[in-house]
Amino acid sequence: MTRTGDHVATVVRPGSPNGSGLPGPGLQAADVEVVRAVDAHLAEYLAQRRAEAVAVDDHFTVELVDPLISFVREGGKRLRPLFAWWGWRAAGGADAGAEADAVLRAVSAVELVHACALVHDDVMDDSAIRRGKPAVHVAMAARHRAAGMRGDDVGFGRSMAILVGDLALCWADDMMHTSGASQAMLHRAGSAWRAMRTEMMAGQFLDLRAQATGTESIESALRVNLLKTAGYTVAQPLLLGALLGGASSELSAALHAYGVDLGTAFQLRDDFLGVFGEPEITGKPAGDDIREGKHTVLVNEALRLTELHGRPDEAATLRGALGDPLLSPQTLAEVRRVLVDSGAVAVVEQRIETLAISAVDRLSGVDLSESTAARLRTLADAMIRRDV
Amino acid sequence: MTRTGDHVATVVRPGSPNGSGLPGPGLQAADVEVVRAVDAHLAEYLAQRRAEAVAVDDHFTVELVDPLISFVREGGKRLRPLFAWWGWRAAGGADAGAEADAVLRAVSAVELVHACALVHDDVMDDSAIRRGKPAVHVAMAARHRAAGMRGDDVGFGRSMAILVGDLALCWADDMMHTSGASQAMLHRAGSAWRAMRTEMMAGQFLDLRAQATGTESIESALRVNLLKTAGYTVAQPLLLGALLGGASSELSAALHAYGVDLGTAFQLRDDFLGVFGEPEITGKPAGDDIREGKHTVLVNEALRLTELHGRPDEAATLRGALGDPLLSPQTLAEVRRVLVDSGAVAVVEQRIETLAISAVDRLSGVDLSESTAARLRTLADAMIRRDV
Repeated sequence: MTRTGDHVATVVRPGSPNGSGLPGPGLQAADVEVVRAVDAHLAEYLAQRRAEAVAVDDHFTVELVDPLISFVREGGKRLRPLFAWWGWRAAGGADAGAEADAVLRAVSAVELVHACALVHDDVMDDSAIRRGKPAVHVAMAARHRAAGMRGDDVGFGRSMAILVGDLALCWADDMMHTSGASQAMLHRAGSAWRAMRTEMMAGQFLDLRAQATGTESIESALRVNLLKTAGYTVAQPLLLGALLGGASSELSAALHAYGVDLGTAFQLRDDFLGVFGEPEITGKPAGDDIREGKHTVLVNEALRLTELHGRPDEAATLRGALGDPLLSPQTLAEVRRVLVDSGAVAVVEQRIETLAISAVDRLSGVDLSESTAARLRTLADAMIRRDV
Repeated sequence: MTRTGDHVATVVRPGSPNGSGLPGPGLQAADVEVVRAVDAHLAEYLAQRRAEAVAVDDHFTVELVDPLISFVREGGKRLRPLFAWWGWRAAGGADAGAEADAVLRAVSAVELVHACALVHDDVMDDSAIRRGKPAVHVAMAARHRAAGMRGDDVGFGRSMAILVGDLALCWADDMMHTSGASQAMLHRAGSAWRAMRTEMMAGQFLDLRAQATGTESIESALRVNLLKTAGYTVAQPLLLGALLGGASSELSAALHAYGVDLGTAFQLRDDFLGVFGEPEITGKPAGDDIREGKHTVLVNEALRLTELHGRPDEAATLRGALGDPLLSPQTLAEVRRVLVDSGAVAVVEQRIETLAISAVDRLSGVDLSESTAARLRTLADAMIRRDV
């Protein structure tokens, strides 16, 4: 890649509105450059695989591979490769040259893991909308109907989405292992690559399990956050990059700790958006988490507080709405009121703020260039404000 | 591993009943030894991953990882690792020592790919039974009900099975890349590893597509066979092993051609069992392929012949039965009669025989030790008779 220009910050906006006291605005020039490089590597890799697919079968290429390519290329903020890249830089990895290019390809592979996670999650959660468009299984079912195919359109859509995700998962590994990173680098980073994918699945498992058991435990909800988001989105990608770069165990531990705090805060913000977010921002219908019956930290905190303060009616409102597929705008408004009035929103906001400060603190005292430390601070701020 | 003892053949049974003229009975001592070594490597690897899972989460370990481990350990004939092993030996790879052990671990990883294929296929085909036991998604749904969980039990079972398959697919790659095979070996074999997984998915895609379009084309059915079975079960595993061993392009091409012919014949036999096989042998309900509406070569051949011979009633019987979830034993018996009377069974039997002979012919003229060539001949015979 060309120089990432760590020292340049062209996107300057007023300081954080969430009172976390962290400096700096959203994505900066250096980050934008990494995201563009990741996009380019994904485009190049997927074009190669498409050419191979053409040799296998045309229908396969047009009807399964192309939807995967569109899904990967048209969406995603590339947050995970971005963190992985800064992990590499934190470990002293070069920001240009053949090795940097190999690392960019390797970290781009995480986006293919993520494509699988999203496509399969939407099947599992039966979510109809992703990034403001029909989810893959929904689009595939629509194609079944449009083509006048026989059999169950919903089942067909689901099967195609399972295959799209499987293909993404395989290609993720292939991209990692053909990235050009040396055997030594891949060996070093292998533990993070393995842990990232296993923890992602463990997190999704625990998320579904929590819905099925209806657990109201805050600890359980935090555990889902830890595995499904904090580890998979921030901590393990950072570690992946850091280990590719040969980071010391001290630096690796600090980056991982930063990632866990920041990723947990990010998910708490996401939980908030799952109830209060507007569809044009989230790309999901309003109140989707409530509709799907997700026992998030926010929801379980509200249940705890309403019980604690002797307000069983409000707890009942919340419990009644959770998992209601026909959730009305009125009920959603009531749920929002309960979350605010119970004090749960304030508690969670406080927790986000504490975690954001703690995340940055984790980096103090470790050997890190000022420019990389600054980037990790501004990224933390942008993540928490969902300004990336 | 210990010596595979290529020269020893302890399992001796009377010659081939299918008249193909190929020598030798089912699995022999050398093969049994390979299968045992594969079992041992899988057990060891899965135990390691389980130990890591315990550190992640107990529920995850017991409720998701353990079902995967049971699925992998309790079933499977290890045909794919077996072919991969003989590919390695054909290329002159050692049959004992550290490198042979690494190769055995690498080829065992194919069983994890296969676990994903089976678990996800059963979800996609909505198959209730696998290896005579409830399919993973069915067992998981039953657990949902037994535990009195909330929400949709069928959806929960399906989600868990998707995750079990995803985990298997990830761990397959991890096992391949931590097998101890050298960078050079993995690099050489990478093309087969990538092609094997992609072609498996392309084959499943085309299979589902053929069901949804109801195509009666024999060519289309043969294409599904080629990708879903011939490539994925025999040709690519053989190639994987051969490339690990640094086979010449001439030898690789011969092994691949052998694999394509043999694998196609194997699938034709499987199609036959899908209609005529008894549940105690197939581990599936009788007539499952008809119930699922699979347009196999056998079925499409029967449709072609009944049309050709002006027997529209028989074609209508067949078309009416295909995809009927409530297929009665009477109708299944009628379907069987049509398949025999139309001549389709005889045509397919002839095709199997021709392919079996052709498969072995592909190996003549290439540089192969007599013991390895003999093993590939007896394996071909056993495969065709489904005697493995």
